[in-house]
Amino acid sequence: MVTANPILIPELRLLLTESDTAGLREVAQELHPATVAEFSEGLDDQEIWQLLDAVSVERQAEIFPYYSMTRQVELVQSADRVRLGALLEWMAADNRDDLLRELDSDMVDEILPLVAKAERHDIRMLLSCPEDSAGTLMTTEYASLPADITAGEAVTRLRSQAPNSESIYYIYVLDSDRTLVGFVSLRDLIMARPTALVSELMQRDPISVRVDEQSEFVVQKLARFDFIAIPVVDDHNRLVGIVTHDDVLDAVRQDATDDAQRIAAIAPLGESYLEAAILSMTWKRGVWLTILFATAAVTAMVLARSPIQHVWLVAFIPLIIASGGNSGNQSATLVITALSTGDCRLADWPRILKRECVLGLLLGILLAVPGYCLALVYAPNPAAATVIPLTILGVVMMGTMVGSVLPLLFRSVGLDPALMSNPFVSAIVDVVGIVLYMLIAILLLG
Amino acid sequence: MVTANPILIPELRLLLTESDTAGLREVAQELHPATVAEFSEGLDDQEIWQLLDAVSVERQAEIFPYYSMTRQVELVQSADRVRLGALLEWMAADNRDDLLRELDSDMVDEILPLVAKAERHDIRMLLSCPEDSAGTLMTTEYASLPADITAGEAVTRLRSQAPNSESIYYIYVLDSDRTLVGFVSLRDLIMARPTALVSELMQRDPISVRVDEQSEFVVQKLARFDFIAIPVVDDHNRLVGIVTHDDVLDAVRQDATDDAQRIAAIAPLGESYLEAAILSMTWKRGVWLTILFATAAVTAMVLARSPIQHVWLVAFIPLIIASGGNSGNQSATLVITALSTGDCRLADWPRILKRECVLGLLLGILLAVPGYCLALVYAPNPAAATVIPLTILGVVMMGTMVGSVLPLLFRSVGLDPALMSNPFVSAIVDVVGIVLYMLIAILLLG
Repeated sequence: MVTANPILIPELRLLLTESDTAGLREVAQELHPATVAEFSEGLDDQEIWQLLDAVSVERQAEIFPYYSMTRQVELVQSADRVRLGALLEWMAADNRDDLLRELDSDMVDEILPLVAKAERHDIRMLLSCPEDSAGTLMTTEYASLPADITAGEAVTRLRSQAPNSESIYYIYVLDSDRTLVGFVSLRDLIMARPTALVSELMQRDPISVRVDEQSEFVVQKLARFDFIAIPVVDDHNRLVGIVTHDDVLDAVRQDATDDAQRIAAIAPLGESYLEAAILSMTWKRGVWLTILFATAAVTAMVLARSPIQHVWLVAFIPLIIASGGNSGNQSATLVITALSTGDCRLADWPRILKRECVLGLLLGILLAVPGYCLALVYAPNPAAATVIPLTILGVVMMGTMVGSVLPLLFRSVGLDPALMSNPFVSAIVDVVGIVLYMLIAILLLG
Repeated sequence: MVTANPILIPELRLLLTESDTAGLREVAQELHPATVAEFSEGLDDQEIWQLLDAVSVERQAEIFPYYSMTRQVELVQSADRVRLGALLEWMAADNRDDLLRELDSDMVDEILPLVAKAERHDIRMLLSCPEDSAGTLMTTEYASLPADITAGEAVTRLRSQAPNSESIYYIYVLDSDRTLVGFVSLRDLIMARPTALVSELMQRDPISVRVDEQSEFVVQKLARFDFIAIPVVDDHNRLVGIVTHDDVLDAVRQDATDDAQRIAAIAPLGESYLEAAILSMTWKRGVWLTILFATAAVTAMVLARSPIQHVWLVAFIPLIIASGGNSGNQSATLVITALSTGDCRLADWPRILKRECVLGLLLGILLAVPGYCLALVYAPNPAAATVIPLTILGVVMMGTMVGSVLPLLFRSVGLDPALMSNPFVSAIVDVVGIVLYMLIAILLLG
């Protein structure tokens, strides 16, 4: 994500109005592509195209993906079709795929015929991968070699393939039907004597991911093995692409933000906070606030139907609800993050429940003690005051149990635990907490 | 993070009891180091050392960092000092640094004299870097070259330096006093004609980070520029180390988990959920639950002092509090994640407040409508029922304002916004929400 850098905008504008192509070329050619995009994000669409025109289409394709996605889409809509075809041909496959997924299908159909045939095949394959799969993260640009050549020959071939910088560091060894049989790092090729065979140097049975595997799982594997890239294979172990470290890093950062937003009951924005349109944000927050409101309304209806008689008991309603809600949210968040980092699995549910049960008891006692002290101040007598600590112990234990069970339950039926858990945790804990409070009060005070 | 794989434990135990060194060597030598650690995590400490003894200390040093940190510390405590010195010498500098930070300073003092002098200097430098700085993420193992040699000579020198796989892909170009003047990728060296000078091939003024810069900032830079590694320099632009993509990925995943836990009012566990000791977890959750309890107690005291007279108004207390709390948590989470991903900065505060003000109004109206409908059911007359929608509008607007201001406030005084925000948001919104409710009720109903 880049934000406009306002400082250089006047200087860029001056170069643009003077049509100083040499000056523009210097800016767009010499800086890192990310920096070019950052400096020029504040220009309007036509100005950006004028800036990009100063350099080769190859360089344009390097800079383009560093604009924010909203901006990329705007730029595509304002460009003529022929230039788009050339730009897309030069763009890295994964960046191109991300962009095409954001465009209307009409526009994609219009642009695709302008792209070379070989690239068209790759585009169609990438676009057909299910969302959030290894396929959507991967690029189809990778370096490959047969096993029966020498290290010296391998380096010569790599020179002629001239792969881009992302993909030259691991070279995949394929047999005649493109089955993945091993990989060799560029380091190993350089270090080896030039007459050594690739088949002697390569690591056999490389760790790979299937094209339809969940992206979360790809992240866990690449992070565990510290790879720069991980190969992606089809059902027959044929290499179809690679996922590189930079795309995994982007995915992890995006997933973390999405998860945090889901845990706070917001449909993930999927774009920068400051860029999101107010109405779209109102919708993404409003829909969950309304759902939470409906569950709170149930609590209100329960309370209205069987009112709590004593004024001092009413005063403790927010405290009872907060104790259950807070401990429930803690448990839910712990289980959600542990599931998504791979720290624990669904099969660990008996251990998780046992832990949360013990923790609920300990935390319940911890809060029941000050609760009793506070109740003694307002209750008519010490016996009546015991309603408060007993209820707190009950709601905290219920909170930790509900908070840990719900994410596991949602995961087991294939739903995203982060998406569903906390609103439901709050709802159940609130309603059951109030009912528990009333029951204990009736039991002890009549 | 690895979890024990129970399936292979019996087979490993058999090899161990039979002292089948050849079999053990095959396991520990042929598999990926991460896999070796995963398969053997379930063994006891002496068994793990016996397994590691089957291979060279160089290989041991590759496997060792893949055990969980708790396990690494246990293994160090059960090993003799001489073997530890050798192991630490071979371990990658960043992994060694992580481990040493976990040990008692007594033990570090005991081990350090056993490590070679050159390494000792690096260790002391890394250990002296402030927590969460570029220095704690970096490794001191990198490849460097002077600018005035040819690409052919450069490749020959790299062969003799034999850098490890993490650090060979970018080679840093230093002048005589180790000032960073540029970098060249291994790809560019391979692609160039052998007689080209490094000074012609290199990128000048490389993007770097200062050794005392916050790790969050290092992550943002590496992610923006898609680097495999980023150089770390001191105040005089002298190269002191590099931060590699795998350590950044680990840091991002750990930070995301820590942030999610902080947002849910849990002091970050810093270890796997299932590995954390129950008592330590009780403390890390209990301390924040107690703080939140104290703030809820204030709400209770306010309510007890000026009781809400009408039973139907009591029924709406949980709903009023939930509306404010939920919208406040949404705003806080959005601002916290936007700040930590670099999507927005402190300087954007006027835009953020304006957005949240408009959003609070829209969301408040959205919830006030069903609130009024529900109130009509329970209120004595339609005029009295207006207390509910007016209060909801007020608390939602207050929630979004408090939720967005607090993280900005904490960031501006140098505190972690994730650490402090949500408990304080809940506290303020609850108390002020109840007071607002009472004021509106008194104003309208007398």
